[in-house]
Amino acid sequence: MSEYDLIIIGGGPASFSAAIYAARYKLKTLLITKELGGYLNKIHLIENYPGFKEISGLELAQKFKDHINKYNIPIIEKEVIDIKKHNNHFLIITKDNKEFKTRTIILALGTEKRKLNLKNEDKFIGKGISYCYICDAPLTKDKLVAVVGGSDSAVRAASLLVKYAKKVYILYRKEKLRGEPLEVEKILKNPKVEFIKNVNIKELKGDNFLKSVILDNNKEINLDYLFIEIGSIPSTDLISKLKIKTHKEGFIIVDSKKKTSIPGIFAAGDITNTPLKQIITASADGAIAAHSSYEYLKNSL
Amino acid sequence: MSEYDLIIIGGGPASFSAAIYAARYKLKTLLITKELGGYLNKIHLIENYPGFKEISGLELAQKFKDHINKYNIPIIEKEVIDIKKHNNHFLIITKDNKEFKTRTIILALGTEKRKLNLKNEDKFIGKGISYCYICDAPLTKDKLVAVVGGSDSAVRAASLLVKYAKKVYILYRKEKLRGEPLEVEKILKNPKVEFIKNVNIKELKGDNFLKSVILDNNKEINLDYLFIEIGSIPSTDLISKLKIKTHKEGFIIVDSKKKTSIPGIFAAGDITNTPLKQIITASADGAIAAHSSYEYLKNSL
Repeated sequence: MSEYDLIIIGGGPASFSAAIYAARYKLKTLLITKELGGYLNKIHLIENYPGFKEISGLELAQKFKDHINKYNIPIIEKEVIDIKKHNNHFLIITKDNKEFKTRTIILALGTEKRKLNLKNEDKFIGKGISYCYICDAPLTKDKLVAVVGGSDSAVRAASLLVKYAKKVYILYRKEKLRGEPLEVEKILKNPKVEFIKNVNIKELKGDNFLKSVILDNNKEINLDYLFIEIGSIPSTDLISKLKIKTHKEGFIIVDSKKKTSIPGIFAAGDITNTPLKQIITASADGAIAAHSSYEYLKNSL
Repeated sequence: MSEYDLIIIGGGPASFSAAIYAARYKLKTLLITKELGGYLNKIHLIENYPGFKEISGLELAQKFKDHINKYNIPIIEKEVIDIKKHNNHFLIITKDNKEFKTRTIILALGTEKRKLNLKNEDKFIGKGISYCYICDAPLTKDKLVAVVGGSDSAVRAASLLVKYAKKVYILYRKEKLRGEPLEVEKILKNPKVEFIKNVNIKELKGDNFLKSVILDNNKEINLDYLFIEIGSIPSTDLISKLKIKTHKEGFIIVDSKKKTSIPGIFAAGDITNTPLKQIITASADGAIAAHSSYEYLKNSL
């Protein structure tokens, strides 16, 4: 079995960037991911990756792929199911029970946005349903918009959306919004905002594009956009097997060099405790993690 | 005098990215810089900004400019000579003695690479002379290369260059290299490396492209590439006036949210104590700093 310097696990911006930098540091690198591009493939319009005024997620993913293909980095599209430590290397096991040996690892598995799990939810992604208010708020100018959720990030979404939208509903299953108190107070005073508490969405309606939602009190609300802000889940299965240090929400704790609590394992992007989860920040994390892997290998020779 | 939410000082990747994010957070933003594009304009080939396999610095700077122009962010091309704090805002003074009022600031002034200050040094930039080994190492395949400098970063440059170049000279004005001991030991053992100590370069020779250097012992060395790694200098004039906390080398200390020691002032990119100074990392810093400015303004209303 050949031994790699670095195996990158994940297929989003952090992984692509890590692969580019690893190649430039001449590390013998392998990228393993369940799906190349991942969530990026589902974003209909990206306007905040500097250098591209407007680009679809699919197109940007393709540009990232072209970029790493330049360096002939091998890519295996398989799910990683286990990681084991053996002396001074790691064994990575994929779902088809193949093993890969490596001296360092970058975990860049990202997170999955929590879904409402309603019928048509996937169908309306990019067609009225968004999981990224920072990406899509500018699309909502003079539109009817709802945010579902009551957390800090739901309140932050509403705060930004009121600057664009005609009206912003906040739909929450509980009595009180859980955002920063000052922020909650402010958003509830905004004349554009209507807070509907103690409700769940039970149906998503529309043809090609979302048109309305039906609540569990049977009220129907006409909407142009629905922002689903009910949290995101880091891919925790692997992490818990590794006994790597995480925050209580499951995000991997890294330092400024993207080192985790396990020497030789680095983490990058949305799966970490980063202050801002964006394509540009994940890409930077990937570069830093690759640099740290390079430094680690140099110092342990 | 109109008051801005945010004034970004600097004209490189961190500033461009901060401006894009600030616009998307609907902050009333102004960008002030001595030179739009800055050092980026001088990089002949960028291969490590994910999404662009190969692009010149000028072209990438133009793409960044196009991106921020979409949001009509005003840009003033002037040098900032002073920043004063007045109650809950700042006054920014430009060289032509104009004043600008703002509630938050992002310092993204970058650094200047220390130069040898030799004749023709500027002329050969991108034509044999490089200040960025991470950017340009892959160009040196089977070439004759020298690194000038003896610091950690000079040694790191040599360690990477040996993977590409035919031969790597290390030219240093002192007796002993100051890099990490293990790393120094390793690089000096490498058969591709020739360490020439106690020398300075006194002349750069060539026509359109660098061809050789003449040392102060009058020895001439034929070269394809010369990597100048004698440190970089943060733009400290403004920083010292502000009494902002810095490392002893002058880089601004920021936390993971890019907050400096002065509330309302954020810093991004090469001017900070970042672990990796690259276009992608500076761009991420700018986005995070803009987000932090937005959060700061929201919480202080």
